[in-house]
Amino acid sequence: MRHLLTVTDLDRAAAGALLDEAERFEQALLGREVHKLPTLRGRTVMTVFFENSTRTRVSFEVAGKWMSADVINVSASSSSVAKGESLRDTALTLHAAGADALIVRHPASGAAHQIAHWFEDWSRRSGSAVPAVINAGDGMHEHPTQALLDALTLRQRLGDIAGRRVVIVGDILHSRVARSNAFLLSTLGAEVVLVAPRTLLPVGVEDWPVRVSVDVDSELPGADAVLMLRVQAERMNGGFFPSAREYAVRYGLSERRVALLDEHAVVLHPGPMLRGMEIASSVADSPRAAVLQQVTNGVHMRMAVLFRLLVGVQEAAA
Amino acid sequence: MRHLLTVTDLDRAAAGALLDEAERFEQALLGREVHKLPTLRGRTVMTVFFENSTRTRVSFEVAGKWMSADVINVSASSSSVAKGESLRDTALTLHAAGADALIVRHPASGAAHQIAHWFEDWSRRSGSAVPAVINAGDGMHEHPTQALLDALTLRQRLGDIAGRRVVIVGDILHSRVARSNAFLLSTLGAEVVLVAPRTLLPVGVEDWPVRVSVDVDSELPGADAVLMLRVQAERMNGGFFPSAREYAVRYGLSERRVALLDEHAVVLHPGPMLRGMEIASSVADSPRAAVLQQVTNGVHMRMAVLFRLLVGVQEAAA
Amino acid sequence: MRHLLTVTDLDRAAAGALLDEAERFEQALLGREVHKLPTLRGRTVMTVFFENSTRTRVSFEVAGKWMSADVINVSASSSSVAKGESLRDTALTLHAAGADALIVRHPASGAAHQIAHWFEDWSRRSGSAVPAVINAGDGMHEHPTQALLDALTLRQRLGDIAGRRVVIVGDILHSRVARSNAFLLSTLGAEVVLVAPRTLLPVGVEDWPVRVSVDVDSELPGADAVLMLRVQAERMNGGFFPSAREYAVRYGLSERRVALLDEHAVVLHPGPMLRGMEIASSVADSPRAAVLQQVTNGVHMRMAVLFRLLVGVQEAAA
Repeated sequence: MRHLLTVTDLDRAAAGALLDEAERFEQALLGREVHKLPTLRGRTVMTVFFENSTRTRVSFEVAGKWMSADVINVSASSSSVAKGESLRDTALTLHAAGADALIVRHPASGAAHQIAHWFEDWSRRSGSAVPAVINAGDGMHEHPTQALLDALTLRQRLGDIAGRRVVIVGDILHSRVARSNAFLLSTLGAEVVLVAPRTLLPVGVEDWPVRVSVDVDSELPGADAVLMLRVQAERMNGGFFPSAREYAVRYGLSERRVALLDEHAVVLHPGPMLRGMEIASSVADSPRAAVLQQVTNGVHMRMAVLFRLLVGVQEAAA
Repeated sequence: MRHLLTVTDLDRAAAGALLDEAERFEQALLGREVHKLPTLRGRTVMTVFFENSTRTRVSFEVAGKWMSADVINVSASSSSVAKGESLRDTALTLHAAGADALIVRHPASGAAHQIAHWFEDWSRRSGSAVPAVINAGDGMHEHPTQALLDALTLRQRLGDIAGRRVVIVGDILHSRVARSNAFLLSTLGAEVVLVAPRTLLPVGVEDWPVRVSVDVDSELPGADAVLMLRVQAERMNGGFFPSAREYAVRYGLSERRVALLDEHAVVLHPGPMLRGMEIASSVADSPRAAVLQQVTNGVHMRMAVLFRLLVGVQEAAA
Repeated sequence: MRHLLTVTDLDRAAAGALLDEAERFEQALLGREVHKLPTLRGRTVMTVFFENSTRTRVSFEVAGKWMSADVINVSASSSSVAKGESLRDTALTLHAAGADALIVRHPASGAAHQIAHWFEDWSRRSGSAVPAVINAGDGMHEHPTQALLDALTLRQRLGDIAGRRVVIVGDILHSRVARSNAFLLSTLGAEVVLVAPRTLLPVGVEDWPVRVSVDVDSELPGADAVLMLRVQAERMNGGFFPSAREYAVRYGLSERRVALLDEHAVVLHPGPMLRGMEIASSVADSPRAAVLQQVTNGVHMRMAVLFRLLVGVQEAAA
């Protein structure tokens, strides 16, 4: 594994190995005051975010620093992009400046793939090493580390993922989280159900390994997990979804809806949450919500991914 | 001490112990080229600033790094706040992502208290450790580390604080620096005099342990220290204080006014200074001004606070 | 050497020694997975950028971190400048907060010189140490580390610089890169030719150690290197240069123009490149373009500069 661009590159064994690795990092740090492993000392990890994201950037920065990597943040607003530089030149420049891994968030679907392709191509021509590219969200396409940390959370909460039914609710169309989760959870043996208004379903969803529904209430009984999505208001170019109020009524995870769930069912949300619209505040704070566990798992998961990509599988996790 | 939210939590002994600790850090670094102590290795310190501040953020970042902590900066502009996340969710997310200490600047009075309360509450429910919260300025309320570094500077310049007269001049109403200094210096035994136009005095100032005056000139003779404030133009919602020119004339620390001070009296300003308005340039650059000493003390003071909150009182400072 | 403000402070021996030092750092890191030297452990390097620049800031940050320095980034947007603080107060504040080196980018020519002067003056009055100031670009004046990394690249590509002819093409007027390169390369024995429209030549260029031409095509045959400049659209206050299209036609490095070059001639560009305007895409990606080599050399060059300024010449590079 040289890059992490899409969950579809991971078969069940590879995904399971990453989840195991993340849990080894969790165990290595558990109950310790000192969160510092020498694993990536002298390696340079750069985050380059063309869209803002506190939680994903911070999560990767913590993961890198806890493994002693040098972490360097590049944000779009301060970047050469404003001066007209191409994405390829920006990426190759960060490579030439010493990046061993590049963590990329970009509004365009496929951006991370492109960068990985350019790195491979440049390596063939120059003989230089290929930095690992990690897709930290590309447009409406994928967000693989989010899906991995969600899978880790589900495995911890439910014991196993295979055979479980996971209902993903909300703005599927604009959600890279939905797409990555649908494919990864399916690879891991879960039955995935998407619930969304037809206007918020992507073209080609009939080729996804999922069942589609428009009615939340009928899907909650029997579900082992509900994954709520963020309404990506910033990706909606006006008009095709009515209002926050209507969204809350038709798709929001209210207390009434949670009562339809089985006792053991778990609620996930990738954050940031719009309480009262996507999810009732009392539900978000209830023990069955795993929102903060997802955040903590995110750090361990990203440690596992950085470790796999930069050190490989031969060595032990610390 | 689990958090540093307000100076009113500190009695004279506790405040004095923090000043002593800061001086131990100063001594530990004095004259050394290598500014690096292992004290906080493997601890994660996050700064989350919902208002800009070069000097406070840099001061905490230097303090953390000199003690080998991992320091992670989160700014409001790149934060999930822009996506509608609540302050509570942002804070708990940073906790779940590994923060051992959260240094918070926020435009709302009470923000740091709220976060500490949420952390304590979450800890009770989840069994997780409670990150230390440091109030780095909350609205018009408090800025405890600023008051502590000012107290340290006064103690160094004057020998002791008890029995000294400190005159605080300017926009008291909008100044968390004024409030924190008034209470801390009073706790440490100083006599505190506030000088401000009536329109720039807070409601309830009659309950502060201070004397109030409107005439700078009559308060300068006999003062041991003058603490000038920044005019918080960004907090004035239009209209109730006339002009820069009038402020300079009535409250600015001119050469003529400095001549009213005793020989030994010291001048403090928390910065950034508006020279020519709040303070004459020649006064700011004179030996009696302690502005840069305040900055240097700020780093040692923040080392002491981080040390106390994250390591405790049992161990020695290096 | 206490500061690096202008290339005109470097004679041929001093400049050559810096290039040698950079190559020692390159050798020390070559082929190693672990990029970490203990050289600057416990030293504090601050970057303070009043203009955005991904590549320069990242380059210095990597250089500092690879030598184990604590690196702290200050950007203008989050700085006290917005609150009306003077440049002198900002700089002295960062000094007082612990900076051993200050890397400054500023839109005003002479800003870094001023800061160095203020530091020296403050040191005389206070007895404090003088932080090293590195000019990372001051207005239309100088960018010495860029010229040094360009010289290193030319020396690597051409074997030596003395006696070589270097043609610098484009917006000379607004380019600190052009000025620094013209003087440094001349010091190192190169023959420098500037090619630009008369409207984009600076006043006083007749005192530079260069020859000036307006015709690119006649200068390319016989050149050993062509250094293309970025069109500093953000520095052009409207009107005096026609259009991107006309610039491309008259000064852009097209395939046709490259064919006029000798086989061994090398093409440099400081980036970010405007492909299709300043340089044809195929030229930028051809083996004779050294653009990414410049970026890599930039890190080693900045390591050399930080090392010289903070450690001095006595000790070896690792």
